[in-house]
Amino acid sequence: MDYQGFFKESLARLRDEGNYRVFADLERHLGEFPKATFRKDGAERDVTIWCSNDYLGMGQHPDVLAAMHSALDRSGAGAGGTRNISGTTHDHVELEAELADLHGKEAALLFTSGYVSNWATLGTLGAKIPGLVILSDALNHASMIEGIRHSRARCMVWKHNDLADLEAKLAELPQDTPKLIAFESVYSMDGDIAPIEEICDLADKYNAMTYIDEVHAVGMYGPRGGGVAEREGLMQRIDIIEGTLGKAFGVVGGYITGSAELIDFVRSFASGFIFTTALPPHVAAGAVASIRHLKQSDAERQGQQDRVAQLRARLDEIGIGHIPNPSHIIPVMVGDPVKCKYISDRLMADHGIYIQPINYPTVPKGTERLRITPSPVHTAEDMDRLVGALKSLWGECKLARQPIAAQ
Amino acid sequence: MDYQGFFKESLARLRDEGNYRVFADLERHLGEFPKATFRKDGAERDVTIWCSNDYLGMGQHPDVLAAMHSALDRSGAGAGGTRNISGTTHDHVELEAELADLHGKEAALLFTSGYVSNWATLGTLGAKIPGLVILSDALNHASMIEGIRHSRARCMVWKHNDLADLEAKLAELPQDTPKLIAFESVYSMDGDIAPIEEICDLADKYNAMTYIDEVHAVGMYGPRGGGVAEREGLMQRIDIIEGTLGKAFGVVGGYITGSAELIDFVRSFASGFIFTTALPPHVAAGAVASIRHLKQSDAERQGQQDRVAQLRARLDEIGIGHIPNPSHIIPVMVGDPVKCKYISDRLMADHGIYIQPINYPTVPKGTERLRITPSPVHTAEDMDRLVGALKSLWGECKLARQPIAAQ
Repeated sequence: MDYQGFFKESLARLRDEGNYRVFADLERHLGEFPKATFRKDGAERDVTIWCSNDYLGMGQHPDVLAAMHSALDRSGAGAGGTRNISGTTHDHVELEAELADLHGKEAALLFTSGYVSNWATLGTLGAKIPGLVILSDALNHASMIEGIRHSRARCMVWKHNDLADLEAKLAELPQDTPKLIAFESVYSMDGDIAPIEEICDLADKYNAMTYIDEVHAVGMYGPRGGGVAEREGLMQRIDIIEGTLGKAFGVVGGYITGSAELIDFVRSFASGFIFTTALPPHVAAGAVASIRHLKQSDAERQGQQDRVAQLRARLDEIGIGHIPNPSHIIPVMVGDPVKCKYISDRLMADHGIYIQPINYPTVPKGTERLRITPSPVHTAEDMDRLVGALKSLWGECKLARQPIAAQ
Repeated sequence: MDYQGFFKESLARLRDEGNYRVFADLERHLGEFPKATFRKDGAERDVTIWCSNDYLGMGQHPDVLAAMHSALDRSGAGAGGTRNISGTTHDHVELEAELADLHGKEAALLFTSGYVSNWATLGTLGAKIPGLVILSDALNHASMIEGIRHSRARCMVWKHNDLADLEAKLAELPQDTPKLIAFESVYSMDGDIAPIEEICDLADKYNAMTYIDEVHAVGMYGPRGGGVAEREGLMQRIDIIEGTLGKAFGVVGGYITGSAELIDFVRSFASGFIFTTALPPHVAAGAVASIRHLKQSDAERQGQQDRVAQLRARLDEIGIGHIPNPSHIIPVMVGDPVKCKYISDRLMADHGIYIQPINYPTVPKGTERLRITPSPVHTAEDMDRLVGALKSLWGECKLARQPIAAQ
């Protein structure tokens, strides 16, 4: 076999489809988020980022930075080992206590990323609980799908956010079959929100465990940033709440929270937790500072919600369609990978605005989009420039406008 | 099903076997590695760590710390997105160039951990190259095994470091079947080293790709820290060199290096690379500083090798057996999980020495051990105390001594 030839051919096919990804080389400026320097072909220019998942700008919060600097000076650059072999630091212990408290659970477990927390937890539960059937929402994140797939457990995929379909599938299974319902609160690409309470009702009725991915919600929803389940008073009804430290909390890493036994079980058996170097202590210290701040401060959440509402209204005014949803994610559909990339390139080149085109495999082919994430660090002037740029591009590219009434 | 009961029972079984893990709560002190504060039940004490994978003490190197502080002040706490969606920073671009250069390859790809780099790369190649057979060394790391398993590709496990068995398995396969030989350079728990050149010869003969995990070698072997393959002048004969930033380089993260097409292929198709928040820019900046330093400084490598030789000689003097191997890892076999933990507990309680007992599933049951990793930051006094403590414990516990001649 000609291995190099195979790789080349596969990449050429991606390019032909318009799905080849080019990463933007960025450098954000502390204290000036969402401003960044964009580098391409040796040239530099200033840009404004409108697609970051540092949703609240916590990546530049003074408390977070101070905690990280201080922990670097105290304990150095890395953890130096797996959690079991010299890599558990006091910062990890404190962070896990903070996370358990955030979600009202007995315990928490830190992973190197949200991806790994989903993959390792679902992979372990599916592999270790004899006969477990995992009922997975059709739009669950890749990390959940891969974890379930890896576990070799039976998986039943239910229609996205469809309670009738979920119940039909639960009812198919014998009452004593172990079951786990896995779903997200805020779905990242469409921004819609799951009917959490009704899912918990079904879980009770059919004796299923519940697993919720709140990565696009923690820090942003609920009076202390505990996520949508906190906002709706449902945290205690969910067995496993999974979240991330890399989005609204502004740092990096993932976690689960749950009962002491469940957490200890995953801690003891999950390969993806056991056999990996722990996150650096200063990362844990930064996350603790961020979580503590967002537990008591509502200003960032309010600022985000205001900006989101403003941008939705402005898009409506100029007739640019966006998927209506109750979250902070504003998907502007384009529906074609080449056109989507063209718009993104023009926004960058002509307007200094960076919005990455979202294409396959992140979203299904034909649903390519610009995914805009307004944050409290975007100014009114930033928004004027964005709306002006989109208006001019939509006109120039002869993209469909929505009648105002349809918004 | 009683889920909580199941978790409790599984944990009780682990405890009964002596395989339940208790993590040591540590806090290393910058500038004073390997000293740390150990916390337990509200009490604190000073300890010396003898089992860290921060093999060269680079986690406290001033260049590394300065680069991280500076990048934090420049770009903030996190990357704010996946590599594709606003999360590629200039620090990532520079780090990947540095890694490609370190291994003499066209390109490199950064992952959130070494575990993820193995899992995602082998998982992707195995799933995407039609008919690929992966020939995997029997002692490969869990992350490689899980990646191969995840890929659903056919896997043939060859006896550890056994060229005859590898060749027998290669010869079984049709010449035109795509093949990948996956192995490590330094095996973490026994410290032995693979016959890299002979494996490459077999790969050439049977038209197989080669994948080497150098996580316990990068930074420490080769004139620029490129690993055992660099030391032996074999880097250009290996298709994929995988490494970590979390051990000798002192930070966190994993990577692969290879041809431009291969790297672009994995970049474009690996779920575990695509759908995860990028490492923070300051982590990348710290890694760059560490790699650059170890490219031109041999002092840390020399210091490590001296300390390793000294400890081996001292153990021989007092008749404490250790597995002979050509690496920096000194495994002192105990062969029983309960005894191993007891010795570790006494080292900590009576002598302020921390060496985590290594038990199942990290090593096979019955091969429990103390795994000692001397580093340039251990002083002569540290070593005197370690040797004295081991001598006294070995006497007290009536553990077998080796006749000096047998060493």
